[in-house]
Amino acid sequence: MTHFINSRETIVTEAIEGLVASSGGSLARLDGGPFIRVVVRADWDKSRVAVISGGGAGHEPAHAGFVGPGLLTAAICGDVFASPSVDAVLAGILAVTGEAGCLLIVKSYTGDRLNFGLAAERARARGLKVEMVIVQDDIALPEISRPRGLAGTLLAHKMAGAVSEGGGDLAAVAQAAQRAASEAMTFGMSLDTCTVPGSAKEGRIQPGEVEAGLGIHGEPGAGRIAFQGARQAIAQIAGILAPRMQPGRHVALLNSLGATTDLEMQILARELLHSPIGIQITHMIGPAPMMTALDMHGFSLTVCPLTEADAALLGQPTSVRAWPGMRSIKVAAALPLPAGLEVFEPVASDSPANRAVVLCACRALIAAQADLNALDAKSGDGDTGSTLATAARALKARIDLLPLADLTQLFRAIGQELSKSMGGSSGVLLAILFAATGDALSRGLGLAAALRAGLQRMQEIGGARLGDRTMIDALQPALVALPDGLAVAASRAREGADRTAEMTRAKAGRAAYIGAAELSGHIDPGAEAVAQVLAALAARQDRSESILGIEEPNPPGC
Amino acid sequence: MTHFINSRETIVTEAIEGLVASSGGSLARLDGGPFIRVVVRADWDKSRVAVISGGGAGHEPAHAGFVGPGLLTAAICGDVFASPSVDAVLAGILAVTGEAGCLLIVKSYTGDRLNFGLAAERARARGLKVEMVIVQDDIALPEISRPRGLAGTLLAHKMAGAVSEGGGDLAAVAQAAQRAASEAMTFGMSLDTCTVPGSAKEGRIQPGEVEAGLGIHGEPGAGRIAFQGARQAIAQIAGILAPRMQPGRHVALLNSLGATTDLEMQILARELLHSPIGIQITHMIGPAPMMTALDMHGFSLTVCPLTEADAALLGQPTSVRAWPGMRSIKVAAALPLPAGLEVFEPVASDSPANRAVVLCACRALIAAQADLNALDAKSGDGDTGSTLATAARALKARIDLLPLADLTQLFRAIGQELSKSMGGSSGVLLAILFAATGDALSRGLGLAAALRAGLQRMQEIGGARLGDRTMIDALQPALVALPDGLAVAASRAREGADRTAEMTRAKAGRAAYIGAAELSGHIDPGAEAVAQVLAALAARQDRSESILGIEEPNPPGC
Repeated sequence: MTHFINSRETIVTEAIEGLVASSGGSLARLDGGPFIRVVVRADWDKSRVAVISGGGAGHEPAHAGFVGPGLLTAAICGDVFASPSVDAVLAGILAVTGEAGCLLIVKSYTGDRLNFGLAAERARARGLKVEMVIVQDDIALPEISRPRGLAGTLLAHKMAGAVSEGGGDLAAVAQAAQRAASEAMTFGMSLDTCTVPGSAKEGRIQPGEVEAGLGIHGEPGAGRIAFQGARQAIAQIAGILAPRMQPGRHVALLNSLGATTDLEMQILARELLHSPIGIQITHMIGPAPMMTALDMHGFSLTVCPLTEADAALLGQPTSVRAWPGMRSIKVAAALPLPAGLEVFEPVASDSPANRAVVLCACRALIAAQADLNALDAKSGDGDTGSTLATAARALKARIDLLPLADLTQLFRAIGQELSKSMGGSSGVLLAILFAATGDALSRGLGLAAALRAGLQRMQEIGGARLGDRTMIDALQPALVALPDGLAVAASRAREGADRTAEMTRAKAGRAAYIGAAELSGHIDPGAEAVAQVLAALAARQDRSESILGIEEPNPPGC
Repeated sequence: MTHFINSRETIVTEAIEGLVASSGGSLARLDGGPFIRVVVRADWDKSRVAVISGGGAGHEPAHAGFVGPGLLTAAICGDVFASPSVDAVLAGILAVTGEAGCLLIVKSYTGDRLNFGLAAERARARGLKVEMVIVQDDIALPEISRPRGLAGTLLAHKMAGAVSEGGGDLAAVAQAAQRAASEAMTFGMSLDTCTVPGSAKEGRIQPGEVEAGLGIHGEPGAGRIAFQGARQAIAQIAGILAPRMQPGRHVALLNSLGATTDLEMQILARELLHSPIGIQITHMIGPAPMMTALDMHGFSLTVCPLTEADAALLGQPTSVRAWPGMRSIKVAAALPLPAGLEVFEPVASDSPANRAVVLCACRALIAAQADLNALDAKSGDGDTGSTLATAARALKARIDLLPLADLTQLFRAIGQELSKSMGGSSGVLLAILFAATGDALSRGLGLAAALRAGLQRMQEIGGARLGDRTMIDALQPALVALPDGLAVAASRAREGADRTAEMTRAKAGRAAYIGAAELSGHIDPGAEAVAQVLAALAARQDRSESILGIEEPNPPGC
């Protein structure tokens, strides 16, 4: 089985059960056993003209998906790509038709024409007023006398449904559908065939080809041509439509045949509006899947001249969720980019103490380059030392441009520098740590608290927790201990870093992909970097104006 | 190229142009060149909390398709399956965020977490209030510390969007999203991998397998298992979800991953409601494509406990067309079949004259069986004679049950008999001819006019016209001549039938598939049958009470 079905025989019956059950009570179905499958509006009171359509399944959301206020009153569902029986159609007619009568909208396929046609006669014999409109919107095979009914059928559904909803009589409802049926022209293209459940897929369309002028039952199209992209595909269809189109404004119905992605459909919409016929397309329905051919990777374009009256009918709102609505085309200029995107350039200022601290940390990272690379080689690609040293050198080079005298701005500026000079996830995470610390400082927190807030933000974004074998394992205990002095913090960082050598299952970072045996006994390079920077800061000589504002006994210098 | 695109590089930019142009003015985009792709609500005035999401493209309609009232304020779009840049996210934030602040809803992928996270810091540095909720609804890989964000993200979008639309403050908006993010659980399955434009398709999933516990970027799922149909697939997911679900009612979000047909999705919906967890599913969103993986033939099921407050937010109407709405589950009994479907049993009555006419026509067809078969063998499968003779024998056998004294009912009854006893399109078309003639008689037309009306109805349904080499070529001239007497009509039928031997291009019926050389010189068997029946009727002896009501000179007998 290659589809999410239970058996080929039960596809349509079970699908209808699912559709009705998830309709929120807006749909109902007739209890007709396996052969009479009819979906009806649950709220229908027969006071207005019923609009009935249907045909083989496999065209979803058509037809059952279009049952609802202002659209279809009932949909008669055959098997996949097979017409429903006369009895099924008759059951649908009888279920929803009152004195106002009903309109049958039928796609021009022999089975549908015959079965709907005979059911109509039977209903008439029972005294019902029944009209029938046959849709033949396909223009791909101009030589045949009965063109196929394709996605243009949706226009007939909507216009008839809107007239019925407004209380129009049977003649008015039929006239609206007939107008759409007479005027709509549809042409389809596909890059692949569809897969009929239970049947082997036909490999008819070769790579590099597109099939043009195709129907909605997987049958071969009018021809296969070289595929040269979305723009060319639309240009080819526009070339076929243009000489047949009347002057004046038109609505375009852009229909996915099933598996075409929204991205592709939206690109096709763009190309349509830029095509030679684009100027006449004042309104669009879709792009959306409306009349599909199972999972066919194709689309169809329907155009129809649009009077004010048509526009009112096609644009009438409906709660039917498969109907994408008709929108007027508005190719508006893009909005200008907002102010504030330019890189934040801090105003440089000096603070000898802060300058010394920053430089001390940078020097420590530069000095640790080889050690950290060696550690990283045990669990990663051996570049942690180089990455950090590069960032440290860059920061050092820009020391005179930093707002050294303003801690809030200094942390933000360092974050910005790191996001530019340091690659990889770690660069972004450190940038977030510094930026968020600056943010916390701006909200009035003290430095130690601000650093902890920055760490928390970094953890939220990065997702790593204590014990995940990352720099957090050194940084978190150090920041917790910071109020007790830098020496204590540095000591905690060292202990934390050392503990990572026993963490044999990394849960974050690249080491997560490495086995326990490789990790055992090796300190995480990020944690080691934190320990070394803190050790250097704690060992600095010029402690009188520490940015950390923590008094300590004289330690050895940085 | 295997997709309806122009180039891999321009996919997202061009798709956004198409989306915005066909949005009816409800959407706008930032003019950010090829790398900053942001779709925003065109009507946004920054007075409320902005709800921003996004990520890589390829998940359409997420995320740009969910921009609109009561949902997202802006969507930031990366390349296919690639996170947008920090600058792109920042541009989106700056474009829509006012004093009320903004919420970022981020799927838990490293790139998205980092880039949205850093952009948030930059926006905060510019004085904006920014909150961020990370969605991690995947339950397929319980051992990982940062589960992936999947379709459950939509619940966060909708709940946050609804609170924002209602004027809630940033904390309330973030809380609503966080509730969905914390409670939603998602599990996906697929029968095939997706096709990334410009990349070869990976043939990872073998026929007969389904991949379970998959993400939305084409990456391998948690495992591949034997596929045993829709019911079993849902049962397996329900088995995983059930022990994790809280008691009480839940909403299910049933999401197509792209190429799964509506038929399949509706069957999955049905199976879900019949599954062991179905009793807890009181509401459903979808089935519909919401968070796709390009054209992946799969689906995902998200469940989330549902409080009254949640239901109000999720159920709040929105004009965003990609949002399928939340519906309450109503598994209602099917409606009984309407009365009137049973076969119409006419009240038998006698009229010696009408009986004689019917029997005469039947005898003529039975007598012509071999001739007509031989003619049909030239252009078809050689069974026209047998088909008509079988129907004639059946009608003859039921002659005593026919309403012979009531012409209207008689024609209807003959139509009904033909639809039962005569196979193929011709049987239905003749049934329509007789039924429609009866219908016309019931409206007061004389018999000749009623027969012409019946013929017209048959032609509307069948589509064949004069000259198409069908029975019409004999029937139409005969019925036109009928007011001049049966002999003239029979003569016209014969002339018309003879003309079909020169019609070398059939346009309807099976002969349409036969070449000119095969057809030339052979009369169409349907036309010949009409000519023979009319000849027999015209030659009848007992003409005093003809059903045709036409006086004629004495002809030879039937």
